[in-house]
Order: sequence, then C-alpha cells, then structure tokens
Amino acid sequence: MADKKVIKSRYFFEEDFEEQLAEVPAEKVAAWDKKAKLKIVGKGVDRYDAYDKVSGTARYTFDIQLPHMAYAKTLRCPYAHACIKSIDVSQAEKMPGVLAVLTADNAPKIKWYRGTSYLFDRHLRYAGDEVACVAAKSERIAAQALKKIKVEYEVLPFVADAGKAMQPDAPKLYENGNIAGGKPSVYERGNADEGFNRADVVVEETFDTQVVVHNPTEPHCSVVNWDGDKLTVWDSTQSVFGVRNALADSLDIPANHVRVIKKYMGGGFGSKLAAGKYTIMAALLARTIGRPVKISMDREEMNLAVGNRPDSVQKLKFGAKKDGTLLAMSHYSYGAAGAYPSGAGCSWPLRSIYKCPNVRTEEYTVFINAGPGRPFRAPGHVQGTFALEAMIDTMAEKTGMDPLDFRLKNYSEIDPVSGQPYTTKRLREAYEAGAKAIGWENRNKKPGSDSGVIKRGLGMASQIWWGGGGPPTYANLKMNRDGSVEVLCGTQDIGTGTYTILAQVAAEVLELPMDKVSVILGDTAVTPYAHGSGGSVTAPSTTPAVRHAAELMKEKLIGYAAAQMNLPPERIAYRSGELVDRDNPAQKMSVSALMRKVREQVLVTTGMREANPEGYAVNTFGAQFAEVEVHTDTGKIVVKRIVAAHDIGRTLNRKLLENQFEGGIMQGIGFALMEERVIDRNTGKVLTTNLENYKMTLLPDMPEIEVIIVSDADPLLNNTGVKGIGEPAHIPTAAAIANAVYNATGVRFKSLPLTPDKVLQGLYGGVKQG
Amino acid sequence: MADKKVIKSRYFFEEDFEEQLAEVPAEKVAAWDKKAKLKIVGKGVDRYDAYDKVSGTARYTFDIQLPHMAYAKTLRCPYAHACIKSIDVSQAEKMPGVLAVLTADNAPKIKWYRGTSYLFDRHLRYAGDEVACVAAKSERIAAQALKKIKVEYEVLPFVADAGKAMQPDAPKLYENGNIAGGKPSVYERGNADEGFNRADVVVEETFDTQVVVHNPTEPHCSVVNWDGDKLTVWDSTQSVFGVRNALADSLDIPANHVRVIKKYMGGGFGSKLAAGKYTIMAALLARTIGRPVKISMDREEMNLAVGNRPDSVQKLKFGAKKDGTLLAMSHYSYGAAGAYPSGAGCSWPLRSIYKCPNVRTEEYTVFINAGPGRPFRAPGHVQGTFALEAMIDTMAEKTGMDPLDFRLKNYSEIDPVSGQPYTTKRLREAYEAGAKAIGWENRNKKPGSDSGVIKRGLGMASQIWWGGGGPPTYANLKMNRDGSVEVLCGTQDIGTGTYTILAQVAAEVLELPMDKVSVILGDTAVTPYAHGSGGSVTAPSTTPAVRHAAELMKEKLIGYAAAQMNLPPERIAYRSGELVDRDNPAQKMSVSALMRKVREQVLVTTGMREANPEGYAVNTFGAQFAEVEVHTDTGKIVVKRIVAAHDIGRTLNRKLLENQFEGGIMQGIGFALMEERVIDRNTGKVLTTNLENYKMTLLPDMPEIEVIIVSDADPLLNNTGVKGIGEPAHIPTAAAIANAVYNATGVRFKSLPLTPDKVLQGLYGGVKQG
Repeated sequence: MADKKVIKSRYFFEEDFEEQLAEVPAEKVAAWDKKAKLKIVGKGVDRYDAYDKVSGTARYTFDIQLPHMAYAKTLRCPYAHACIKSIDVSQAEKMPGVLAVLTADNAPKIKWYRGTSYLFDRHLRYAGDEVACVAAKSERIAAQALKKIKVEYEVLPFVADAGKAMQPDAPKLYENGNIAGGKPSVYERGNADEGFNRADVVVEETFDTQVVVHNPTEPHCSVVNWDGDKLTVWDSTQSVFGVRNALADSLDIPANHVRVIKKYMGGGFGSKLAAGKYTIMAALLARTIGRPVKISMDREEMNLAVGNRPDSVQKLKFGAKKDGTLLAMSHYSYGAAGAYPSGAGCSWPLRSIYKCPNVRTEEYTVFINAGPGRPFRAPGHVQGTFALEAMIDTMAEKTGMDPLDFRLKNYSEIDPVSGQPYTTKRLREAYEAGAKAIGWENRNKKPGSDSGVIKRGLGMASQIWWGGGGPPTYANLKMNRDGSVEVLCGTQDIGTGTYTILAQVAAEVLELPMDKVSVILGDTAVTPYAHGSGGSVTAPSTTPAVRHAAELMKEKLIGYAAAQMNLPPERIAYRSGELVDRDNPAQKMSVSALMRKVREQVLVTTGMREANPEGYAVNTFGAQFAEVEVHTDTGKIVVKRIVAAHDIGRTLNRKLLENQFEGGIMQGIGFALMEERVIDRNTGKVLTTNLENYKMTLLPDMPEIEVIIVSDADPLLNNTGVKGIGEPAHIPTAAAIANAVYNATGVRFKSLPLTPDKVLQGLYGGVKQG
Repeated sequence: MADKKVIKSRYFFEEDFEEQLAEVPAEKVAAWDKKAKLKIVGKGVDRYDAYDKVSGTARYTFDIQLPHMAYAKTLRCPYAHACIKSIDVSQAEKMPGVLAVLTADNAPKIKWYRGTSYLFDRHLRYAGDEVACVAAKSERIAAQALKKIKVEYEVLPFVADAGKAMQPDAPKLYENGNIAGGKPSVYERGNADEGFNRADVVVEETFDTQVVVHNPTEPHCSVVNWDGDKLTVWDSTQSVFGVRNALADSLDIPANHVRVIKKYMGGGFGSKLAAGKYTIMAALLARTIGRPVKISMDREEMNLAVGNRPDSVQKLKFGAKKDGTLLAMSHYSYGAAGAYPSGAGCSWPLRSIYKCPNVRTEEYTVFINAGPGRPFRAPGHVQGTFALEAMIDTMAEKTGMDPLDFRLKNYSEIDPVSGQPYTTKRLREAYEAGAKAIGWENRNKKPGSDSGVIKRGLGMASQIWWGGGGPPTYANLKMNRDGSVEVLCGTQDIGTGTYTILAQVAAEVLELPMDKVSVILGDTAVTPYAHGSGGSVTAPSTTPAVRHAAELMKEKLIGYAAAQMNLPPERIAYRSGELVDRDNPAQKMSVSALMRKVREQVLVTTGMREANPEGYAVNTFGAQFAEVEVHTDTGKIVVKRIVAAHDIGRTLNRKLLENQFEGGIMQGIGFALMEERVIDRNTGKVLTTNLENYKMTLLPDMPEIEVIIVSDADPLLNNTGVKGIGEPAHIPTAAAIANAVYNATGVRFKSLPLTPDKVLQGLYGGVKQG
C-alpha cells in the first residue's frame, strides 16, 4: 500500500524531554507522563510477528492439523422463518466417511442466544439458522452429506425489515413480539420539548444506515480436541477466556477442563468476540466420534451467520439559538438485531459529545428474520455519528456558521452525561490540527458551488468513544538469568499488534533490545487473565499491567543486588541489564551474575492494571476530515484524502497506530460508499454472500491518509498513559465523507451507503440526462 | 505389585484434630501444623496422571512426532583413551537419507563438562565418548551412516580404576593429573587423633562400593524444533530451566528464545538433572538441516554415557569409650568421577548423623577412563551410609552393646556440623517404631548363630539427608468463574507425583474436589520458576508456593465478596467455592456469582516459597530395618522384609509416599545385591551395557515393605510442613541389608554388591564344598 498511497503520522505536541524517568516505587507505579523520556515505546518498532507473517510460518487456527482429525460442516435453514417437522439423517449417516450427524433430535439441549433458543432448535428464525452439523473424514464428504439430510419444514411467514417488524400485524419471531425487551431504551436529560420551544432554529431529519458484515480476512474457525475429559480448542477468537467459559457452560464441564488457544489471527472486528455455535458443535461432534474436529466457516457462512452491524433508522430533531448554541436534541431510532438478541442502539455519540442541556433519546432494537447482529467496531457509534454529524452540519448552515465553529461553540469541557471532568480531552486540538492539515479554508463556502463534472468537497466529523480499559488485567513477567524476559498475558493479538506493544513496554522498563523479550498470549491454561479484545480496551488494559510487572522486576533486582553488594537499595540503579552502584559506576553486576548468587535462574513478577481514577470520565476523541470527488456523471464518489486528528493518549507504536487508522478508514469508506448486506424481500434470503456481491474497500479505493496525534499521554488514566484506538480510528470516517459529499454537491444524502445510484438519484432524480 | 507383596504405611502419631484451620493472613501464611485439620492433603488420593498413564495416552518425549522430523544417532569412541587424528565423513554424507554429520571438524567449539572438554573434542577419555552425530531421515539410516564414518585414532594408555589412577605413574586424563582439584576435600572438627588416643576401643576397616548406573525406564531423549531463531525442545529432564540455560549458553542465544517442555517422564534419578550432550547436538543438527530432530539414547548409551554413581573405597577408623560413647571418627575415601568432573565424596552421613566431638574426613575424587559420574539418588550418602552403619554395628559389638542402643547412646539433638538445632528430628521415634515393627528383639543376639542352610538375620541402618527445599519457587494460581482452578509451577513431575500433590494442596485450601484443579508443569515459557527436581527438594519447595498462592486467592475472594455484600471481610468465610456471611450463613454468593459482579472471569495470584527459618538445620531422618535370608549353599541373599521408619515432615499423599519407598527400597536392594557396572580391565570397555548383564531388582526380588511415618509436620520449615522423601527412602536400604547379612552369617561383607560369589567367598573362601 505504501507504494500507492501515502500514509503519514505526526505529533501535534513536541516537548523537550528534560527529565529522566524517576525511580518508581513498586506499589504505585507513577504514570509515564509527557515528560517521560521513552526510548522504545512510541517508536515505529517492527511488528514482533512480522517475520512469521511475511514468511508464511505463522500458524493460524486453520493451519492446525491433528492426527485423525475430522471435518465438520453445517446444514443451514433455507427459509427465512420455519419450524422443523422432521429430520431424516439416515442417508447421510450411511455415507462412507461420515462419522456423526448432530441435529435437534440427538444433540443435548444447550441454550444459546441468551437463552432465547437452543444450539439446535426446531424453530428457525433466519435463512442460515443451524439445522444439523456433520462430521466426516473430509470436508468434501461432510458437504456432500449435508445434501443427504432430509428435513421437512413448516414454512412460516417472515419479516426482514425492522420498520415492518415493529408493526402490530407483523409475523412474530418471539411470543412477546419483535421489540427486544418489549419497549425502547430511553435516555433523558433536561427537557427536550421545552428546549425546542425556546429554540430559534429547529431542524428535523431522518437518516438510515445499512447492515454491514464484519468479513475479516480469516474466516471463523475452530479446531477441537478431547483428551479424556479435557478439551483443547484452537479458535480464531477475540476472547479466549470468553470462549472457554461458553464451552464450559454449554458442555457443563469445569472451566479448568477447557483450554482455548489463539496465536495469530487474520482480523477480528467484533464477530469473533463471543463463542460461535460452530465451536460448541465441533466439541460435541469430537466427543461423539473420539477424534479431533476442525470446523471452518466458508465465506457464505461468514456473510450469513456470524454477525453483522445492525441497520438503523434515525429521526433526529435539533434546536439551537441564533448564535449556534444547541438547546435541545432528540433522537428516535430503531435497528434490526436480526433474529436473536443483540443491541441496535446508536444514540451514544449524540448524548455525549456536545454540550446540550436538553436531550432525549429513544432506541428500539427489533427482531427480524435475518442473521443475528453482533458488536462491530464501535457498536452504535458509526451509524449514530453519521446522523449526528450530518445534523450538526445542517444546524451550522441554518445558523450561518462554519461547521467547525459550530462544533467549537458547543464544545463540552466536561462529560455532559455524568457531569464529570475528563482525564484528558483534546478534541479542540484535533479540530484545529485537522482543519489546518486538510486546508479547511479551501472548502466550498457554499455547498455544491464547485463547478465541473467532478465536484470536490471537504467535510468533517467528530468522534467520541470510551477505550479507557481498566482492570482486571494481569501480566506475568519472567526474567531469565541472561537478562532476557518472557511476558505472559491473557489477552490475544487479533492482528492489531498486541505482541509488539507489550514487548515494547517490557523492553522500555527493563532497557532491553526487543529481541530479548518474548510475549505469550492467548492461551487460557497458561496465561493470566485479560479482557476480550473488544471495545478498544486492549492496549490501555494490558500495557499498564506489563509495565507494573516490569517495574516490580526492576525493584526486585535492585533489592537483590543491594543485598549482594552490601549497599542501600537507593544506591543501586538498574541500567540495561546491569545493577550499578550510582556513586561508583565501576562497581556493578550483570543480572546473570546476580542470579547465580541468589540461586535463582528466573525471577517472576505479576503485574496488574490499576483501577481507573474515580470521578473522571474516560474517553477518546477525534475529528476526521475528508476530501472527496463526486463524479456527477457516474455518481461515483472518490475519497481523495482523509486527515485523522485524534486524542488517544500515548502512542505506543507509530507503525501499528498507522495500521489501525489505515484499517479503520478503509472500513469507514466501505460503510460510507459500498458495503451492504442485501436481503431479497421476497424470500428473506441474503443475496450478498460472497465478496463479489458484498463489495468491500480495495486498495485502489484508498485515499491519502494523514494521521495527527494531538495527545501525548493520559497520565491520570493509567501508568502508560494509553487509551484505545481500534474503534476511534473508524468511527467518524463515513460521517466525514458524507459531509464532504454535501459540501461538494449541496445535496444531503441521508441514506448509506452512498452508491452511485443513490448519488444520481439525489442529484438528478435518477440517471443524468445527457 | 500389590498382588504379590504387601506394602503398607501407618502413622506413629495420632492426634485429635481439635481446631479448624484459622483464617490466614495473605502475607504470612501460617504453617499447617499437626493440628491442621486437612481433608485432602495426606490422603492416598489417586495420581492426577493415573488415567493418562494406564490408558497409554500419556505422551512422553519419545512420543513427540513432528512433521519432517529427522533422527540423530551418535558415533562413540571404541577406545578407553584416544585422540582423533582424522575423521572422514564423506561416505556417510553420501548415503541417501543422511542429512548432516557433525564432528569436531565442523561443529562449533562448545565447552562442556565444566569447561574441561568440548561438545565434540579430539581428546576422547572413555569408551563411549562422543565422536560424531548424524541426522538422517530414519534412525536406521542414521545408525548405518555411523558405520561409514572413518576415524583414525591415536590410542592412548588408559586407567579405569580410581586407586590406580591416583598413582603418580598412571596414564593422565588431564595435564594436572587425575585427582580432581589436585587435592582432597578435607573436613575436621575437634581432633580425631587425640580422640583415638583416648578411646578404649578403636576399629579400622576398609569398605568399597561399585559403580551403578541410573537406568531409568524411559531413556534420555530430546526432540528439538527451530522456528526461525526460536528453539523448542521436548526433553526427558529433571530440570526444564537447567536444560534451557544450557541450550542458551551453548548456542549463544537468549534464554527467551529457548522453550523446554517436559510433561510425563519415566523416571529420573539424577542422570537427567543436567542437560545432555545429545540435546545440544540435536539442536545443532536441526539448525543445520532446517528440520526437527529426535535423538534418543539406546540402552547401551544409557549404560555408557549419561552418568553413574561413582564407586568408593572408604577407610574408616572409629574410637569409642567402653560405655559406647563415640570419641573419634576418621574417614578416608576415594571414588571415580569417571572421565569428567563429578563429585565422588561420601562422608556426609558420617559427619552429620552421630554426636562425636572429633571427626576428620578426607575425600578424593579421581578421574578414570570411564563414563562420567552424575548425581544418583542421594549422591555420596548411599555408599557412605553403607560403610558408616557397618562401622557403627561393629563398634556396638566391640563395646558389647545392642546396635540400636549404641545409636541411641550417640544420638545428637543438634546438628553436629553447624551446632544448630533442627527444625524437627524424630530419628529416635523412627528407631523405636521400626524396631518394634521388625521385631528387633528376635534378632540373633550372636551374629551368625542362626542354624540351618538358610540363615536369617535382622539389620538396621540410619539415614540423614537434607530435603528441606526452599526458595526460589513460585506458583501461579488462576481461579475461574466456576470456581475451578489452574496451578502453574516451573517444576516438573519426574514420575514422583508432583502433579498430584500440587493439586491436593490447592484443592485443600480452596476446598475443591481434585477434578476442579488443573496443574501445568514443566514448560519454561509458560510456568514460573522452580528448582530442578533433585535433592528431594520438590515437594518442600513447591507445595508451600502453591499453598501461598491459594491462600492469597481465598483472601482475594473474601475481599471482593466483602465489598459486594457490604460486610467487613472478617464476616466473610470461604467455604467450598462459596462466600458466606459467618453471622448469617443463608447470605452467600458463589464464586461464579461474585466474578460476574466484578467483571473478572479469572482471578490470578502468585505464591512464593518462604525462606527457611534462620538458625536451624533442616534434615530428614529415618531408619530402615531389614530381614534377610542368606542361602548358604548358593550364596543367594533374599530380602524378606524392610521396615522403613522415617521423619519426613508432613505426608502429602499416602499412596505416592508408598511409591517412593517402593522405588527407593527396590533400588537399594539392587545396590546391595546385584547392580554393578563392570569394565573390562584389558580394554577399558563397559561389559554391562544391557539389562541382561546389568542386573536390576525385579518384582520377584521385592520384599514385604512396611512404611512407618513418625512425623506429622515440620511447621518451622515451611507452610505445608513438608520435607522431601525421594532420596531418604533409598539411602539406608543397602546398609540395613548388609547389617542384616552380618547378623545372619556373622561374616562382615565389606564390598558391594553382595553377589553370591562374594557371599560364598566370605563364608567358605569360595564355593561351598558339598
């Protein structure tokens, strides 16, 4: 990608690093603030796993091959809504090479989807719902056997649209109706109606966004193996401990009998955060047949059954004073959870980013006959930000203000929801730096005023997310006799670079070359606990635990050396693997020499993430600025540039940070312009089950990206000063693009994705007449 | 074995268990003393690994199969002493299937045997010394290739007898001569000569013992695999961390690039305590050929090249007063280290077990042209105890005392070497209980007075060893949401039951069924550090670390529950996985419910073995009593019964304890009666290179065994009150048998093993004349 596009990042603050990092007490590790003179953390250190990945030696879950392994495939319901009347598996079972067939007839009753259904259920709620699972000697035989299973269905009426599903006469997925919980989730502060009454300008608009599918490069995959009553599972998962608990609960075995392992992973954007049905099915089959079982989702299954971002219909009403002061906002929304429980709310950005005294939100999560939703890179925020930021631009226009000035006018110094101050908030700096970088002054002062067939425009959008992380997260650190170390942490590297950043933190504290640090992650049996890798909590949760363990190690070494050298501990400094007398630097011992004296070959410490500070709100902030070209003859939108200016606390690794922005913006462009799961309204079947029909952003679609980090560290939050960046990088991209398209064309597109047909429809009411 | 022989154990002390274990503070865990009411620890819980082992699913090192694995075999020197003039490997290299050949010509210069030699050296010091190592596609091809290697040797004069090697004109193995360090190791307290002058009775005798070979059931074996510059080694080792350090040092790579794994092991008696040459050779070959390599010693190599117990010649002189008070002891000994550095001293029991004011010992370790010595189940103590206890019996006879009374007369309440009190010493109780059990009053009052062809006799011997263990030993403990736990410790289970005892301790503290506890050991990458499994330190080092971790976990759970239940922590009791309000037991939470509240799926603690108490000597003690039959027509000795009465601190697991005694006594019988490495004096070659010629104790040779544990706990030593038992169980067996043979025959045999030819020689000066 480097050949084609330029991605560069820079730092807004450049401070003199005056003081060296002071010695830290083991109990309370002082946070690395902006004055911390760090040598490895923050640098663009190469990925720890780079060699494995580029050389092809990295083993992903699919690469696990076990002796006598069998392969499983799943039979899925062809109807959007049906009940199983009978299943006949006899022909399938007779096929040579078929080892076992599981269905609702013979599988244990294991509750699934928060107890609303079973692993194998006779009530099937979407076209893709699991009917049977076959284990065979090869994947091909398993696939053939699926065709031999005879299922008699009672086909039921279906509904595949959230708005229709909310109607009283809609086909019901559940006895209690299609609205999750039977009522909306409502949030209120102040009195929105009163605010509107006092407002000089009131605007009301309706937006909608599509369902998109995670589609990570590596499909969901599990390999399971029983050894007696102990189960080992290799899984492409964002949460090894979560999958372990699901297996233990589902199979009713103790958690210590289940080991879940994940080493490398080809992407996880939320669909891999919870255990999949396939993993449990594979475990049941493996137990039945006494052989290991591999189950891997194909691309069709990836697009049907493992999750998606719910769609949304959002009605927003904003009221402001003439001077641009926001007085009231209301947000009514509904979105499709799919056939099983999942959250579809999207009003959080509206509630929390701008100062506004009167806010009311009302969110409906609706069941429809379609694949279940799952968290997707900033759940709710991406669709919510699109509508919110469009409304903000509209309010700016209606009050005659520059969109950026309008945002600054309504800037909130405290969290408007909790009333608490932030640990840090540098959104103002992000606005300023981003505007400067994109050349905000060059935007069309009048939207749509650019002449020519190709119209250019600039747009922007704000971003808020949590991403503060926190306990519980532990790290074990072992220092070997030669000064090399091993770090163990219960998190997993889902491709984001967790191996690398944890090695950096340990190398920083212990003043070691990266090569002397090993990192072991993603194995429930041997690593201490950490969160699932979701919510952008990984870096801010794990790096402080590793730093704590490393600082404890330093203290331990100093204590041992003091005893050996007959000096008070204050006299001893740890410098690059040596214990040095501060007053007489010639007097020193290597770690190796010290350990031979104390008879220890390895020293061990355990670090833990400290609690977040009380009384503070923790958020990440950012603003993205987009420059687009709208080809008014074809309706094609080309994103030319994205400037992403963000407050993310400390940067751990410049290269990895750029990777996050690259991926987040890439997915943001997809959401803005092309990605969409399409369901046939006549059959309720998904039409976009491969990557030809489900269009994702490709390299030629990528813009020039400039990343500006406006934060140095968040020392109030944790000892490394780090906030998360995975989701923030993605949240405002689509909103900024949509606002840029408005600036280019003067037409407000309120429905994503902005496909050429919609653009032409918006511009001309259809195809341009020549 | 249970079918044929009776082994039973019982306890000398039976106390009322009055008090429940008090709540323990996390910082300083109160030791389990004899009042501790334990439910799982001490019981004969089944082996944790029993199913795996009896079902054949247990994977030993040899069972590791890796894709594209190659096999290595070693060419060994056929001469007892030689130099390599030239090596021609060209014919071997040309063989189809041969992948690489390493010799002194092409291997890196890696120092070995404490720097006295190289991994591949041109100076070969015993018949079996390593000359070349071949990697091939199969073990058969590798073995064939060895025959194609042409080596031109310069054959040197050799010496294979320690006594001869000490002569000034003996062939020298090293420039500085054949005495290790150039001088003896000397210990003195008081003045022995003055003591002898004042003695009423002075006796002087010379004893000798043979070289025996460890011969564990599972041969030494390594499987090595490089992944880039990272090395993983599966090894049948008593010290994963020791092997790791040896690999890192030898290959000059960071320790964190080396992972050593051992799961199950078929015995380790000291020869597997340090890394073997073969492991390094396999690593070099694997790096050269880019494939994994397996190397396994065959039985011939096991008997030639991986260690042995040095022989001994011991001259002892004892002086006593008429009343049996020992006044002086001197001990002069030499023993063969083999061709490379190893300790051959054997005077420790003499120095430390009896009260005697004047002691002098002088020990020579001598190099000879034979396989190198290595620690073997109580190094020095087994041969030293044989001579010491024979002398004690002789002194008793000369002073007209019962051997037991003589020992009690010279009983030492403090450590005679350091002058310190013991943490515990129950040797007196062992004497009393053992004597009662064997029927000591039935012994021949006059040795040899039993009439008949089969003469019966009783004998006894005392035992001292360290076995206190200590830091550094760490354990990590993880408690899962369902209350099940995982224990990680850096030790390895060499077949003794470490998995089981660590699970018991965790289960005891956390009141869990054994099934809810998993134990992970023997993996340098993922487990915290512990000692190598030698010196009987494993149980007393590791169990306190696990208990500490478990007690910390309990405290942690109580703290969390107190916060959740709004109660002071003192009000909360942890009972079998539930947190209970002491004042209102109906108010309680399960661990699972608690963890869901605190958002932790797993809690983590790290325990550490506390320091041994200062100012105390730590020792194990015991006495074994043997009943033998000497068949005076054949010279065959049959051991009928062994009573083993020992002070070992707390018993952790009655079954495993009995296993230790069974194995220790079995090896003791072998040392006493049959095992012997025989070297051809003409060629310097070992003649006993298989288990037909090297005779070991078999099941029909096994006596009835009664184990009496006279100790309850050693609460001064550590928090579980445990001392080691691996070596103590073995130390006095041969000595007790030899003393019983004297009691039966009236002939003092001073040379082990007591083979029929020696017995007949002793009884009749040769074969009995019919």
